[in-house]
Amino acid sequence: MKNIAIINGANLNLLGGREPEVYGNTSFDSYVEMLKQNFNDVQITCIQTNAESEIVEALHDAERHCDGVLLNAGGFSHTSVAIRDAIAAISIPVIEVHISNIFSREYFRKHSLMSEVCQGMVSGFGLNSYNIAMYAITKTI
Amino acid sequence: MKNIAIINGANLNLLGGREPEVYGNTSFDSYVEMLKQNFNDVQITCIQTNAESEIVEALHDAERHCDGVLLNAGGFSHTSVAIRDAIAAISIPVIEVHISNIFSREYFRKHSLMSEVCQGMVSGFGLNSYNIAMYAITKTI
Amino acid sequence: MKNIAIINGANLNLLGGREPEVYGNTSFDSYVEMLKQNFNDVQITCIQTNAESEIVEALHDAERHCDGVLLNAGGFSHTSVAIRDAIAAISIPVIEVHISNIFSREYFRKHSLMSEVCQGMVSGFGLNSYNIAMYAITKTI
Amino acid sequence: MKNIAIINGANLNLLGGREPEVYGNTSFDSYVEMLKQNFNDVQITCIQTNAESEIVEALHDAERHCDGVLLNAGGFSHTSVAIRDAIAAISIPVIEVHISNIFSREYFRKHSLMSEVCQGMVSGFGLNSYNIAMYAITKTI
Amino acid sequence: MKNIAIINGANLNLLGGREPEVYGNTSFDSYVEMLKQNFNDVQITCIQTNAESEIVEALHDAERHCDGVLLNAGGFSHTSVAIRDAIAAISIPVIEVHISNIFSREYFRKHSLMSEVCQGMVSGFGLNSYNIAMYAITKTI
Amino acid sequence: MKNIAIINGANLNLLGGREPEVYGNTSFDSYVEMLKQNFNDVQITCIQTNAESEIVEALHDAERHCDGVLLNAGGFSHTSVAIRDAIAAISIPVIEVHISNIFSREYFRKHSLMSEVCQGMVSGFGLNSYNIAMYAITKTI
Amino acid sequence: MKNIAIINGANLNLLGGREPEVYGNTSFDSYVEMLKQNFNDVQITCIQTNAESEIVEALHDAERHCDGVLLNAGGFSHTSVAIRDAIAAISIPVIEVHISNIFSREYFRKHSLMSEVCQGMVSGFGLNSYNIAMYAITKTI
Amino acid sequence: MKNIAIINGANLNLLGGREPEVYGNTSFDSYVEMLKQNFNDVQITCIQTNAESEIVEALHDAERHCDGVLLNAGGFSHTSVAIRDAIAAISIPVIEVHISNIFSREYFRKHSLMSEVCQGMVSGFGLNSYNIAMYAITKTI
Amino acid sequence: MKNIAIINGANLNLLGGREPEVYGNTSFDSYVEMLKQNFNDVQITCIQTNAESEIVEALHDAERHCDGVLLNAGGFSHTSVAIRDAIAAISIPVIEVHISNIFSREYFRKHSLMSEVCQGMVSGFGLNSYNIAMYAITKTI
Amino acid sequence: MKNIAIINGANLNLLGGREPEVYGNTSFDSYVEMLKQNFNDVQITCIQTNAESEIVEALHDAERHCDGVLLNAGGFSHTSVAIRDAIAAISIPVIEVHISNIFSREYFRKHSLMSEVCQGMVSGFGLNSYNIAMYAITKTI
Amino acid sequence: MKNIAIINGANLNLLGGREPEVYGNTSFDSYVEMLKQNFNDVQITCIQTNAESEIVEALHDAERHCDGVLLNAGGFSHTSVAIRDAIAAISIPVIEVHISNIFSREYFRKHSLMSEVCQGMVSGFGLNSYNIAMYAITKTI
Amino acid sequence: MKNIAIINGANLNLLGGREPEVYGNTSFDSYVEMLKQNFNDVQITCIQTNAESEIVEALHDAERHCDGVLLNAGGFSHTSVAIRDAIAAISIPVIEVHISNIFSREYFRKHSLMSEVCQGMVSGFGLNSYNIAMYAITKTI
Repeated sequence: MKNIAIINGANLNLLGGREPEVYGNTSFDSYVEMLKQNFNDVQITCIQTNAESEIVEALHDAERHCDGVLLNAGGFSHTSVAIRDAIAAISIPVIEVHISNIFSREYFRKHSLMSEVCQGMVSGFGLNSYNIAMYAITKTI
Repeated sequence: MKNIAIINGANLNLLGGREPEVYGNTSFDSYVEMLKQNFNDVQITCIQTNAESEIVEALHDAERHCDGVLLNAGGFSHTSVAIRDAIAAISIPVIEVHISNIFSREYFRKHSLMSEVCQGMVSGFGLNSYNIAMYAITKTI
Repeated sequence: MKNIAIINGANLNLLGGREPEVYGNTSFDSYVEMLKQNFNDVQITCIQTNAESEIVEALHDAERHCDGVLLNAGGFSHTSVAIRDAIAAISIPVIEVHISNIFSREYFRKHSLMSEVCQGMVSGFGLNSYNIAMYAITKTI
Repeated sequence: MKNIAIINGANLNLLGGREPEVYGNTSFDSYVEMLKQNFNDVQITCIQTNAESEIVEALHDAERHCDGVLLNAGGFSHTSVAIRDAIAAISIPVIEVHISNIFSREYFRKHSLMSEVCQGMVSGFGLNSYNIAMYAITKTI
Repeated sequence: MKNIAIINGANLNLLGGREPEVYGNTSFDSYVEMLKQNFNDVQITCIQTNAESEIVEALHDAERHCDGVLLNAGGFSHTSVAIRDAIAAISIPVIEVHISNIFSREYFRKHSLMSEVCQGMVSGFGLNSYNIAMYAITKTI
Repeated sequence: MKNIAIINGANLNLLGGREPEVYGNTSFDSYVEMLKQNFNDVQITCIQTNAESEIVEALHDAERHCDGVLLNAGGFSHTSVAIRDAIAAISIPVIEVHISNIFSREYFRKHSLMSEVCQGMVSGFGLNSYNIAMYAITKTI
Repeated sequence: MKNIAIINGANLNLLGGREPEVYGNTSFDSYVEMLKQNFNDVQITCIQTNAESEIVEALHDAERHCDGVLLNAGGFSHTSVAIRDAIAAISIPVIEVHISNIFSREYFRKHSLMSEVCQGMVSGFGLNSYNIAMYAITKTI
Repeated sequence: MKNIAIINGANLNLLGGREPEVYGNTSFDSYVEMLKQNFNDVQITCIQTNAESEIVEALHDAERHCDGVLLNAGGFSHTSVAIRDAIAAISIPVIEVHISNIFSREYFRKHSLMSEVCQGMVSGFGLNSYNIAMYAITKTI
Repeated sequence: MKNIAIINGANLNLLGGREPEVYGNTSFDSYVEMLKQNFNDVQITCIQTNAESEIVEALHDAERHCDGVLLNAGGFSHTSVAIRDAIAAISIPVIEVHISNIFSREYFRKHSLMSEVCQGMVSGFGLNSYNIAMYAITKTI
Repeated sequence: MKNIAIINGANLNLLGGREPEVYGNTSFDSYVEMLKQNFNDVQITCIQTNAESEIVEALHDAERHCDGVLLNAGGFSHTSVAIRDAIAAISIPVIEVHISNIFSREYFRKHSLMSEVCQGMVSGFGLNSYNIAMYAITKTI
Repeated sequence: MKNIAIINGANLNLLGGREPEVYGNTSFDSYVEMLKQNFNDVQITCIQTNAESEIVEALHDAERHCDGVLLNAGGFSHTSVAIRDAIAAISIPVIEVHISNIFSREYFRKHSLMSEVCQGMVSGFGLNSYNIAMYAITKTI
Repeated sequence: MKNIAIINGANLNLLGGREPEVYGNTSFDSYVEMLKQNFNDVQITCIQTNAESEIVEALHDAERHCDGVLLNAGGFSHTSVAIRDAIAAISIPVIEVHISNIFSREYFRKHSLMSEVCQGMVSGFGLNSYNIAMYAITKTI
């Protein structure tokens, strides 16, 4: 059985609550329940944090306990060299996930510092992006 | 039953033949066979062309016959406003697919003119990107 | 009697069909009928192609048979050095035509590689741009 | 009967006098006479000023008395946010006119602040640009 | 009793008239009446001009008669070195005022040449920006 | 009675202590006392934190308990997409406050990622900027 | 006897009055008296204006009455295409004069739109720049 | 005996016909005759096409039948990632040839996407560039 | 006896563990033991944190307890204005330390926001950079 | 009696010989004779060198023997930080001289590294630029 | 018999010695012997210097004694306006030679200041580049 | 016993003489005496030159006689590809030394072409930078 960590960054605790056109209107908890049923041979653990340092450390930890990571770093995707370095430092695959299509939003959101060191990207499918990325990682590792 | 077109652009006829570190070493034909078995409720049609105009026209056609498109425009991803306009002009979802992680290659390959008008992107999983994108489109339409 | 070629580039076969806010809702064929009545002393020939190479060759040909060209290169306006070179290589006047106001759209559409070597530009008047450009070329040659 | 204002900006009082390769060798007054004969169902009024503020105010006034404006802002085309704001603030169509092909001159002349808020542009036909633009506006309003 | 000059630049005579989403729908005259009642220990004088030179001269004059200036240079904010030099040349404080939030509009409006030499900025509160800036200057001088 | 939160970011605990030419020489605590007397119909709560994540969460919280926020994100103003996203995600007005005139300091300080999503900005009046911004928010909500 | 016009632009009426480190502390009138004695075979006329349009027109006029122009356009040097066009349009030599060394001031002051179309530049010698430029023009025409 | 393909791109069918200052005044056919005599131990095949896709495919083909390629991609040199990818994908040496000195022409012509993946470049010697490049390739393979 | 703080930023807890080509293969703890022996007249305290805010606060604290700081901010070097402001706000010397030669890595790593406000930089000597920087600070304070 | 050194840089030994449209057709030696007669109360010494290092050293020397320097660094004007540092290091005034109008030539010639640290510039008057600069320096020191 | 000078710039004395992947492993002296045998109707003279000034002067001299120059300016290719000016000043053809493919190395090596004023370029063929360039110049002059 | 060469570039002969705020007020000769005493097991040789070519050659020589180099290329640090190539071509370690903190000076001084190919950098400690760099090199080789 595979262990996959989902790490969600800043403001993603708002999923299902505020700004539904950006964050959707399903809460992430209920969404993950569905995900677990979909992938019943995968052990899924979820972390959400607004702190860059906790993402860095979650990545360090993941290497010891997991087979792969789905990372939606939120706003940190575009600004954090520290998280990028953490991805590069661990040996398990990290897949970059975005709910919205980051390429059709503001100019500063079109460039992700994470992409170059992640294995791949799944972007633009709403909450479904996690589902697809989970499928991707099960096909990869 | 869904109809999905896979449109492959310039040089993707080389898949399985040359430069395996970029294009993999499975021929696309045998890969598609596997894909069809995986998604036996999807009608899959494949086009490969080195001509930009034929991608434009394949997109125009797809709207009449298909429910969605997986598009790997190859080198045209970074240079063709004509293909971008064709994507924007049709009403079925188009998913951008890349075999390699375009964000860790040459600077001019990091920007795709397609992304802004596609529904989403799956990038960096080798030939598996098509598999994942097919999964994505079946979850979307 | 003057011979004027209208050369339309990529996606302009969609005129009157899709995306009416960009391409209008009159088919180009019926529009040209009206144009021929308006300018009954002009021999008008129309070409639409999605292939860059066919525009290059249509320009080469035009020099032998026509007195001037109205060129709406569509998406190629912003990317094709080949078409630009063809315009520069022929000795008849070429007028750049745009249906929409290219300066109020995406940043990459604000710069046309054609403009520097065309005689003039008519842009932003909807399908009327062809009418006005036809008037312009009859006043020029 | 339509009322159309022609507003000419800085240095355009030199038309027909100095630098004929840029400003032509017909005086604007005699050119306008010809224009009035050409468009005898249009009431044409002409203003030339070297002052940015007078263009701003001529645009404010035009809205009360005219059905449309042909604007050749001269050097201000490339530098005046004030004139741009005036165009955006009035509800009648403004057409940008240039005697020379601004895209084949110095780099700072290739970008016009006006274009984004005008309805359309006619550029590069010598004095004939006004004739063509007048034709354009009569076909538009 | 303090003397404060309000200097309004290009197109601000349209306040309360045109484009209410940019310029509001209160005339500036009636707004100033309210302002005078709000700050009855301040002598307020108002100037509106569409001419850059008159702003330069109003700033030169203000130094002789006023204790401070609220300046909304409108479109000149982004283009006029001359006004900037006038602000730098006088010794009374000048506060930059903007009705709209200039940072959420077009890219060329995000940079003001004035800001570096003004004392401070109040931006984005509609006509209330003047009220707030008046409060600011009374707390400063 | 209105509830307004003042959120101060990195290094603003140094107010009144170090670098008086940047941070002034009044401690923020004593300044806030004065502020409370000035605005005795406003319930003011103050937070200072050097952690980006705590600003994100303070903004999330503010929406539940406050009518508006005065935000001086300090150095984060120029680097944090996460805070920007938090501002955009909440429905109460946020006013950007800067003690110094950020436009007359280093080049990287001239651009604030916050401005585009805040209601307005008050900048350059020393500690008085909070006073003025409080006045502004009481006039706005 | 030669006729030379000195045209001074925005804020140069402040010479000898304000900001002595930028504008010196001699009034321009008394300076010109000295200049006339120095060059007693030159007919010197002086214009100062804060209006861009008046510089444009002074250049147009100078061509009819003068043998050359010393132009210090002040802040307009960096922003006015209109004045540049006026210089290019007249056939008498124009020499660009700057009191301060524009190359050691703010970045936007390092580029003058005038330089490319003036005959030469004298910059950085205080008021003496006019003296030197007068010497230069008498040696040139 | 070596097999060398000469691949000429867009507008190079005009050689010897139009714009002699750019394309020379010898037809390419007669030039190749001379070339064959010069290099009588080389089997030379020539292709000219205005279509990007045909260059891509000619490169794919060349690998099977030739020992090396002289490529003058014309205007595609500056815009085609697809051709670049084709060059990179084949294992025989490709030499970039330019008739004119591309470095002394328009700015967009100074950068060739081909150069990084070709073995070398011969540029600026008129039609002689092919002669020299043929000499180069015979010395290389 | 001097008190020197070593502050290590994000991911530097991995020293001696992962990615030896970037982080070396000595654990920092054992390295510091050696350092203490080398500089037995210096009181060395070490902090490692992945949190930007804790670096800001460690710098604030250092001023009260230390004579100088060796700072390796890791990925924050390139992104944190908050840390930069903390360095500028304290009066003890801070020396920037980098294990790798940051100038021969990715483009975004070549610019450090810290450098301008630190006293000096020691970069590129592996773990030895700390040794050298310790020597430097003992020679400076 | 004043001592003034004229330092001429790379290729200025060609004056009067080659490229008369750039370098004029008077030899510099005969020109200097005329200059000495013009300024008979100035001791003029001339150096021409194609070596950057000799200009650096000539500047170091000049400080010991001269009252000022006229420097035409030729091509080094645009590339030499070493010469710039030498100018900044000496305490006598250095005036930058250019024969041609550097602002109307190639883009890389429009920026001089020398200007910021010279006292002033005389540019664009042909060989006369030296005459004018000599006049300037006699009026300055 | 033709006289051709080969001028080699900085570090090219290392040919055949150090860094064989950049400079090859044949000494230039022995290479030139071979070259002389290849072109026995050409008088070949070789200069290598690490001094920019000696290249400038070698170019000046070449005009008097030679019919053409093969110039490999090494690192100066990218930085020396002085050498560029010397090439432009002489009337014999200069061909730019590069051993490596400069377009596939560091970004600053992709732009040569020489190219615009040389007749042509031969680049990327190892030491063979000289052989090919010699062939080129014998076909040209 | 180690042999270390110190190579000082342009204007560094002024150390201890002119501009003490940049170059300090100790002569380099007396400083080196101190250095020799500090490192009595190192054979130190010093070169200062204002000529770029002599630095190139000193680096070539150093490889034969020395174990390492401390290089302060002065102004050449920012402009010389030739010196950079010489550093890359030799196999002994070169350490970049700067007296001042180059990152807090003019923009063009913030980028050193040397850094990428040197082993490390010591910058900002005044003359002490040499002392520290000597310590660094003795710990490295």
